[in-house]
Amino acid sequence: MSSLASLANHQVRLARRPAGLPTRDDWSFTTQDVAEPAEGAVVVRTLALSLDPAMRGWMNEGRSYIPPVGLGEVMRAGGIGRVVASRNARYAPGDLVSAAIGVQEYATIGEADASRVALAKIDPRIASVPQWLNVLGLPGMTAYFGLLEVGQPKAGDTVVVSGAAGAVGQTVGQLARIKGCRAVGIAGGSAKCEFVVKELGFDACIDYKALDVKAALKTHCPQGIDVYFDNVGGDILDAALARLARGARVVICGAISQYNNMGDVKGPKNYMSLLVNRARMEGMVVFDYASRYPQAIAELAGYLQSGRLKSREDVVAGGVAAFPEALLKLFKGENFGKLVLQVAED
Amino acid sequence: MSSLASLANHQVRLARRPAGLPTRDDWSFTTQDVAEPAEGAVVVRTLALSLDPAMRGWMNEGRSYIPPVGLGEVMRAGGIGRVVASRNARYAPGDLVSAAIGVQEYATIGEADASRVALAKIDPRIASVPQWLNVLGLPGMTAYFGLLEVGQPKAGDTVVVSGAAGAVGQTVGQLARIKGCRAVGIAGGSAKCEFVVKELGFDACIDYKALDVKAALKTHCPQGIDVYFDNVGGDILDAALARLARGARVVICGAISQYNNMGDVKGPKNYMSLLVNRARMEGMVVFDYASRYPQAIAELAGYLQSGRLKSREDVVAGGVAAFPEALLKLFKGENFGKLVLQVAED
Repeated sequence: MSSLASLANHQVRLARRPAGLPTRDDWSFTTQDVAEPAEGAVVVRTLALSLDPAMRGWMNEGRSYIPPVGLGEVMRAGGIGRVVASRNARYAPGDLVSAAIGVQEYATIGEADASRVALAKIDPRIASVPQWLNVLGLPGMTAYFGLLEVGQPKAGDTVVVSGAAGAVGQTVGQLARIKGCRAVGIAGGSAKCEFVVKELGFDACIDYKALDVKAALKTHCPQGIDVYFDNVGGDILDAALARLARGARVVICGAISQYNNMGDVKGPKNYMSLLVNRARMEGMVVFDYASRYPQAIAELAGYLQSGRLKSREDVVAGGVAAFPEALLKLFKGENFGKLVLQVAED
Repeated sequence: MSSLASLANHQVRLARRPAGLPTRDDWSFTTQDVAEPAEGAVVVRTLALSLDPAMRGWMNEGRSYIPPVGLGEVMRAGGIGRVVASRNARYAPGDLVSAAIGVQEYATIGEADASRVALAKIDPRIASVPQWLNVLGLPGMTAYFGLLEVGQPKAGDTVVVSGAAGAVGQTVGQLARIKGCRAVGIAGGSAKCEFVVKELGFDACIDYKALDVKAALKTHCPQGIDVYFDNVGGDILDAALARLARGARVVICGAISQYNNMGDVKGPKNYMSLLVNRARMEGMVVFDYASRYPQAIAELAGYLQSGRLKSREDVVAGGVAAFPEALLKLFKGENFGKLVLQVAED
């Protein structure tokens, strides 16, 4: 373990709370030595980080489902790393682990923090590192519990998901198909829509940049929408509300179109469709299902291995220094699949 | 039955679809003879009509939970009347009945239509005619099933209801108290708020015309709102969403602040509170519970008779000719209690 002394840990910290889209000045860049782990701690070398729309919310002040990232703190991020030093009997050097590593090259995780950052060994034989951040990571867990627990799809239902080529959306639609539903995606651009239909096997995908979403939903959902899984908010949520079937379930998972909104969030003006159609709209936070992740991972890994479930990741190189620019791809809709920042070669 | 020939039936019909608040020109006034009933039919003399916010929606074109009133048709309205002629063995002259009578002085209801207009005998010993349109009528049914089935209150919950002095709201809050909850009302003006607290026994009532509703909800709901029963929409819905407790249920029953909105409906910009708080927002239409009205009426009648449940009706005189003006009281917040139009002395 004497090798740690020579290592420099480059970190990205939240310098100020952004107004609108985060800019480079909202971040600070620090370098720390990597210390030997104390009793019970492990040192993890970051291999890849998950970049998620939710990160934008964590940067804001105020009450939410988890505390905001404090000013001056290392930016929160989930990731995959390799244990390089350990004084915790449950982890050995060389183990591959997932955890809320943060945007940094090395994370030292004490015994008391292991549960808070969800430190867990992962098996590289089941899926690749990017897949462990995607379909077997929080996006996959979000899709699994959001669709199945909150959306309550029944065979034959029409399930619509926005952000269909994104991390959560791709698994939502494929899982809907596996459960016997029709899956209709909404995504931006013909390349994403073609991927969603041809590669992922959705029944249809609506290009919101080219089409009137409301009219296209009428075409593709002639019996109405039974489950709408919303990742985007704004006008697309309104278009979906206008097309609900009776007794529909709307899963509120995210609202990426609104996260950088400087004025008021655009509320869904068609919300009275909930009354007309006796429908419900319900929010979900994936962390509530943490005790059941193993069950979901086992099921999704089975689909992955049998080829019934495909995944696509958009892996950006450049290490932690590239984090500020890479994050913006999400809000510009430039990522194609789950956005992953590669921090180190394994 | 020979007396029917001398009767004139004054009616109010929908002449055109209103833009914004209905004006007198949106109505037409007709007079018809009252014909002898055919086999299976009854003739009902209208005593009182229920004036409801939902009427505004029925005047609009387009898909909703029931078809719109057609142009030239007698305006739809629930009411109480007395059978004056019958060729239906289930009803005798003199029986008091409730039905969707329409805004007219006499309704002839054929056997085939009896179920569609929900023709039913009522017992005047249980409650007064206005009470049969209020707590034992559709407002009471809406409060009962909306609160208990959709709102799912548990003892100790904080239940907030808007339109608290109105037809639905008054029963929602009192029923919440009966079920062991704290009840906080929102109403317009100090007289209504005083009534809601002192007469109906709510724990508190917020005067939205005098107070910042968001701040007042913070004061009166220190642990957050477990059930919010919304009759109004708009800014008050947003204020309630901002104060939800974890796992809250929002019952969407109406949106009176938006029914005459000429531009876009104001969508709830705080809807992401559903995600943060793992809450749900669900619409309800009382007609779905029609088969269970007898159970609800029995329970509510018991509370009425024991004095645990109070009711207040705002009875307007003037007959069907007064309908257009009387209806507007609802949208101006001028009614104090369930708005009833008296059509005839019994």
